[in-house]
Amino acid sequence: MATANRNPEIRKDAVNNRLVILSPARSRRPSDFKSKTQAKSDSNPSSNAQPQCPFCAGNEHQCAPEIFRTPEDSTSDWNVRVIENLYPALSRDPEVKSEGEEYVHANSASGEVSLGGFGFHDVIIESPVHSVHLPDLSPSGVAVVLLAYKKRIEQLCAIDSISYVQVFKNHGASAGASMSHSHSQILALPVIPSTASTRLNSMKEYHDQTGKCVLCNIRTNKLLIDESTHFISISPFASTFAFETWIVPRYHSSHYHELDEDKAADLGGLLKLTLQKLSIQLNDPPYNFMIHTSPLQVTSSQLPYTHWYIQIVPQLSTIGGFEMGTGCYINPVFPEDAAKILREVEVPTRE
Amino acid sequence: MATANRNPEIRKDAVNNRLVILSPARSRRPSDFKSKTQAKSDSNPSSNAQPQCPFCAGNEHQCAPEIFRTPEDSTSDWNVRVIENLYPALSRDPEVKSEGEEYVHANSASGEVSLGGFGFHDVIIESPVHSVHLPDLSPSGVAVVLLAYKKRIEQLCAIDSISYVQVFKNHGASAGASMSHSHSQILALPVIPSTASTRLNSMKEYHDQTGKCVLCNIRTNKLLIDESTHFISISPFASTFAFETWIVPRYHSSHYHELDEDKAADLGGLLKLTLQKLSIQLNDPPYNFMIHTSPLQVTSSQLPYTHWYIQIVPQLSTIGGFEMGTGCYINPVFPEDAAKILREVEVPTRE
Repeated sequence: MATANRNPEIRKDAVNNRLVILSPARSRRPSDFKSKTQAKSDSNPSSNAQPQCPFCAGNEHQCAPEIFRTPEDSTSDWNVRVIENLYPALSRDPEVKSEGEEYVHANSASGEVSLGGFGFHDVIIESPVHSVHLPDLSPSGVAVVLLAYKKRIEQLCAIDSISYVQVFKNHGASAGASMSHSHSQILALPVIPSTASTRLNSMKEYHDQTGKCVLCNIRTNKLLIDESTHFISISPFASTFAFETWIVPRYHSSHYHELDEDKAADLGGLLKLTLQKLSIQLNDPPYNFMIHTSPLQVTSSQLPYTHWYIQIVPQLSTIGGFEMGTGCYINPVFPEDAAKILREVEVPTRE
Repeated sequence: MATANRNPEIRKDAVNNRLVILSPARSRRPSDFKSKTQAKSDSNPSSNAQPQCPFCAGNEHQCAPEIFRTPEDSTSDWNVRVIENLYPALSRDPEVKSEGEEYVHANSASGEVSLGGFGFHDVIIESPVHSVHLPDLSPSGVAVVLLAYKKRIEQLCAIDSISYVQVFKNHGASAGASMSHSHSQILALPVIPSTASTRLNSMKEYHDQTGKCVLCNIRTNKLLIDESTHFISISPFASTFAFETWIVPRYHSSHYHELDEDKAADLGGLLKLTLQKLSIQLNDPPYNFMIHTSPLQVTSSQLPYTHWYIQIVPQLSTIGGFEMGTGCYINPVFPEDAAKILREVEVPTRE
């Protein structure tokens, strides 16, 4: 496990066309990495008191409008609620869209390009109970959350001007969560963001060269953490962050919302296990996860090489000027070491 | 100044081909933005005590080897020291380079590409005195630091396998600084990082369409903060972060290290003023600055469209899963508002 004698290495992520510098920790062993703050105690104190939390059952009236709940027909009890964000980053007012178009034409000569900030920004409340976090749910409880993402994406697909949907979760204040009650978010954008188009181009390049999908062809051996019937969890070859973990479907699938109930139940178990392992090993770190899916309107020729996955990033360090300037991260833990440690974490079997 | 009635807007940065969502702050006016922690008290406490700080004059023996100092011929007194980083992210051992090349060949079929982590990681100590920060120096004192960057880059240029040089400064622990004594860093890489190649491509596209350099042609009007003989400071049209500021040469120049002494003195004054204004307005925030220059080996056909600049980013918020997932940031302060506020900040005239 000692990495002290390893030389630094620059690796390229063939999925995202991104460089990382793997540079052994300054005097720390990979197994010594722990979060300095525990995410559960790191949250906004004003939302710790259950009566003041709008996401708790009984406080639904404090929230922005509900989009749907699970189960659908329940009038009182619910497991998951999908609601509008009270402070949306984008506006669902269609008039904003047309404002934007004029602006583009007015300024394109100067290189200034702007669109109206039309889009959707929703919140998925993962449990009615304040203290229950996502990995505290049963595998089938996690699956209910995963299927709520799917259903909401399908609704957003029906809206003409939406090009891309980003599902993400911020856990802990230093990972960007402003509410401690377990929740995730969906932002639906009228444009394809740069990471998605870069990823598509990079996956296409690999497919052009090999005739294969890069994520179907991924080598796991030393990088495998766990596997279920339909999914694997791995430390990616060019991990950007220490203990970054991906959950990848073993079957080829371009879009997350192709997930069916059977696969959602399987994924629920593996996502729960992965989050439990990261929490045990790294001292309940703040973390983010992101579902990297394909743009909503892909052509049929793109389908053979686009493959969705979930990226989970524990927040163990600070980003500095080098990372901001270059887009190249310095990761002190080799992914082979992270995978070995996470493979061996023992999770209590009682749910 | 009220932005409450503004609709969100999506803007594209023509320099970096990057999207940003400008979304008015949730109930805060732009002038209310302040850093929660002051950078000077936010630093690693163990390095606050001057006798234990290896960057202080008199403690030079605690540092990794010196590369040069200014003035050059001084044996005791110095203004600026450039030293090796004691914990370099890359190795200056040429053997590491050749290791990498073998690795690439061994694994390219699987999509796994890796290089040896060869490169240089240096530290510029900006003052011999622990409590003196960069904007506390006189304009000509800042110029000495800027000319040390130039000299070190020129030395690194002479090394065959170095393709790109990133100069950056982390100020305050939450901006990634592990030492509170004022310093900046230079990382010399054997590859061109993704942000630099994306920037080059984006600037080329603009030049192809207009026949002009995007940064020579930049529209300032509402976005101008200050100007000096050779430089302007602006809030960029598609600011990624609240109060992000760029310092751009008014003359066309592809590489930072073309800076001469006269222009360095002028830039020293404007950089000092800009950092003072950000500190006064935003309550001494942690910040990063990055010098975005061109790859060391650009072809002469690239010279007409590559133009260096300095990006200064105060750290006022946390990055979450949306930003990590999409590469698209949500900025609550419109750059027009940030520029107006920063234009009007009064800086005490005594140095």
